[in-house]
Amino acid sequence: MRVALLGTGIMGAPMAANLARAGLAVTVWNRTADKAKPLADLGAIVAPDPASAVAGADAVITMLADGPTVDAVLFGPGGAAAALKDGALVVDMSSIPPATAKAHAARLAERGCGYLDAPVSGGEVGAKAGTLAIMAGGTAADFARAAPLFAPLGKATHVGPAGSGQVAKLANQAIVGITIGAVAEALLLAEAAGADPAAVRQALMGGFADSRILQVHGNRMVERTFVPGGKVSTQVKDMATIVGVARDLGLELPFSELGSALFAALEARGEGLRDHSALFLELARRNGRA
Amino acid sequence: MRVALLGTGIMGAPMAANLARAGLAVTVWNRTADKAKPLADLGAIVAPDPASAVAGADAVITMLADGPTVDAVLFGPGGAAAALKDGALVVDMSSIPPATAKAHAARLAERGCGYLDAPVSGGEVGAKAGTLAIMAGGTAADFARAAPLFAPLGKATHVGPAGSGQVAKLANQAIVGITIGAVAEALLLAEAAGADPAAVRQALMGGFADSRILQVHGNRMVERTFVPGGKVSTQVKDMATIVGVARDLGLELPFSELGSALFAALEARGEGLRDHSALFLELARRNGRA
Repeated sequence: MRVALLGTGIMGAPMAANLARAGLAVTVWNRTADKAKPLADLGAIVAPDPASAVAGADAVITMLADGPTVDAVLFGPGGAAAALKDGALVVDMSSIPPATAKAHAARLAERGCGYLDAPVSGGEVGAKAGTLAIMAGGTAADFARAAPLFAPLGKATHVGPAGSGQVAKLANQAIVGITIGAVAEALLLAEAAGADPAAVRQALMGGFADSRILQVHGNRMVERTFVPGGKVSTQVKDMATIVGVARDLGLELPFSELGSALFAALEARGEGLRDHSALFLELARRNGRA
Repeated sequence: MRVALLGTGIMGAPMAANLARAGLAVTVWNRTADKAKPLADLGAIVAPDPASAVAGADAVITMLADGPTVDAVLFGPGGAAAALKDGALVVDMSSIPPATAKAHAARLAERGCGYLDAPVSGGEVGAKAGTLAIMAGGTAADFARAAPLFAPLGKATHVGPAGSGQVAKLANQAIVGITIGAVAEALLLAEAAGADPAAVRQALMGGFADSRILQVHGNRMVERTFVPGGKVSTQVKDMATIVGVARDLGLELPFSELGSALFAALEARGEGLRDHSALFLELARRNGRA
């Protein structure tokens, strides 16, 4: 299987490496070409532009910053879509709004190409280890075709029609953002009431309050280390998309709206580059306890 | 070690059984005596009132419904406190407000008795299996004395001075209640946006959104089974205590306040006896999707 991977950034580069190590014929492209070059050592071909990268490819993976970037790389001047071979499969693993993903699916279907939106959770660590959680939207047939692509990257789940992968990613981000708020308030209450927050976190692990967020982000709150991990600015963008999608659907999601407002306030203090567990600081400051 | 256990309800009865099986000399008392009698088969002595239950005991465990009940059983007419032997240790494993626990600690100290507040998480299943998460507040010396009592019941963590165990339990309940809200909103968004909520839950497990609540309560939401488990009415009581304690400390905890209001609204619809995962229904109904 010949595969092109467009976007060899923090996530895309280790993903391309894992595909190459799995024996796939990989061509890569990146806007900043320097980031793609090291992949040549693993046998990947480095292409000078998206169109030449995807020429002849059976499948194309995009791993880009946001919806407008995917738009430009696929459909902009010199974009990949016009160069796709008939019946090629595009797998967009970027995190973009569900409506944009659906529009891309429709435009590619017109060209006779398959499409999956397949954003991931697990970060750089998961990308390197090949243990990403992959949430895939599209047809069952396209999901089946993508199996050899997903296998070296992590665990893929088919969650519904095109756009559903992005919806699942938003569901993921809503839970992550709100649970960070829950753990922050619990540890703040513990501290203010005279208990030992580190011991409280320890006591709660293994019970019904246990979560990856309590384990990982709770520890960052106790230690007051807010080094990313996942950035506040990313959480702000994702929570805004969640609230926007919910409004378009006529949904009122009060915990998500509260989380969106609090993360935005934290970013407005100039702390967008901290780890999202820094929501603890926002709540602490509002209570004069930072 | 001679131990008295006051309150052999759903939690207290299996705890008393585990203490007896561990070889401790156990005396039990329960307001409804019928619930205590089966423990006699395990060698426990069934006492007719709290005072005679605690006479001669080295340690007394209370496992009762709420603060006023613990008040009455310890300090009411014919209560246990007056009958305690010098230096006895009282371990209150009920879930009561931290201020009440601190007051009990002070009154027992005046009588020369030790005290721990040691509420639990893990429910009836954990009580039977001896796998409760025990959050203990009090002195390090009293915590060390309680080790042989805690060992047959679960895993105990010392979280601070008297009252801190109750604070940790509130922290636990805040995280549980808010995380239920997070998972409910995520699944509601997934469903409304056309994804498969069961597949989305599956895809999210193992990632940063994973939690005991996503695993257990998320499944109840997907299956629309809201059989307790933990009751809405208990969550309402706990969230009200959390908000009350926070206000007394001058703390603003917006996620907890939102959760408190939503659980109260659900109970006001007459659904207090459902599992607390039924918060999904409250959010669904507000969006015309129940």
